[in-house]
Amino acid sequence: MTNDLPLSKEQILDAAEQVLRRFGPDKTSVVDVAKVLGVSHGTLYRHFASKAALREAVTERWLHRSVAIPLEDIAARKDGSAADRLRLWLDTLIAGKRKFAAEDAEMFAMYAEVTLHAVEIIASHVDRLMGQMAVIIEEGIIKGEFKPASSIKTANAIFMATSRFHHPAHVAEWSSEHPNEPFELVWELLLSGIVSSHES
Amino acid sequence: MTNDLPLSKEQILDAAEQVLRRFGPDKTSVVDVAKVLGVSHGTLYRHFASKAALREAVTERWLHRSVAIPLEDIAARKDGSAADRLRLWLDTLIAGKRKFAAEDAEMFAMYAEVTLHAVEIIASHVDRLMGQMAVIIEEGIIKGEFKPASSIKTANAIFMATSRFHHPAHVAEWSSEHPNEPFELVWELLLSGIVSSHES
Repeated sequence: MTNDLPLSKEQILDAAEQVLRRFGPDKTSVVDVAKVLGVSHGTLYRHFASKAALREAVTERWLHRSVAIPLEDIAARKDGSAADRLRLWLDTLIAGKRKFAAEDAEMFAMYAEVTLHAVEIIASHVDRLMGQMAVIIEEGIIKGEFKPASSIKTANAIFMATSRFHHPAHVAEWSSEHPNEPFELVWELLLSGIVSSHES
Repeated sequence: MTNDLPLSKEQILDAAEQVLRRFGPDKTSVVDVAKVLGVSHGTLYRHFASKAALREAVTERWLHRSVAIPLEDIAARKDGSAADRLRLWLDTLIAGKRKFAAEDAEMFAMYAEVTLHAVEIIASHVDRLMGQMAVIIEEGIIKGEFKPASSIKTANAIFMATSRFHHPAHVAEWSSEHPNEPFELVWELLLSGIVSSHES
């Protein structure tokens, strides 16, 4: 039975996510998603040319909706110190990745796999996050809380220096440790590298 | 034809490495190594109870001989500043991992896989490296070059904050970038976190 109503991208991605979760990322095909939606596989192939494209689109939506949007809200706040906001931003990023890995291991493994190949999706996601972090850092510099520096370079440095806590390649290490202790050590070191000396 | 001379651990590991390299880590069995050495597989199983044990022993030797020993020499030096020595120690660690990944991709993949499971081997290797770094940092603190802090905690923080550049899980990112640029950003931030303010 096929359905002739035009499908929105969101509807397709909802169905794709549901099928990926039910059958597992390795076993899900574009045809399986078409069946759930009650459309021909030709219709679905016009949106996603391959299984890889489907997986990438689902990952991209997750990164946007569950990572970038909540972090955007934190970067846009104006209350409190820049250091506190930066810490909250990083804590939220790290907690989001750990929660996803712990609660949905199979989808997380798919996301980790996609990040290795979907270079453009990841680059544009990371660029967006770097812009958010740079806003927080820039404000800290203007308020004299942080030392003068290139806010975007500092954002990149902090993101790379905290990879062990949010990059999906490190998932194996997350489950065996207390989440906050090792990060606390790194955070103290990074913070002491950016605060202006009359603040510390 | 079997050989009755007692085998040293080094001889066995030399043969194992040679066979792993020739057949590939996935296809090498303990029996293949026994054949190369001209001993019964019973003899070899007394040394390595499984294929996994063989792979772990080869990885452990590589970590010891090609990573820990060269870094030990750097940590033991007394010339120059602590910051320069710390940078050389990190550069050597990073260059060693990149060289291994680039020149011997299959063995590197085996090492990356082993590190996920051989928790004790990796913990004892990392402890040794942390001791080396702490020696360099401690000297920087005594000379007034670095701020007073726990040298072992600082060593751990720097090691974690540079994971992206030496942890095998990041191998996919290394090949597509200029090796020094991103590390330089992180290094500047970390250094500015540890130098004492009258030095900077």
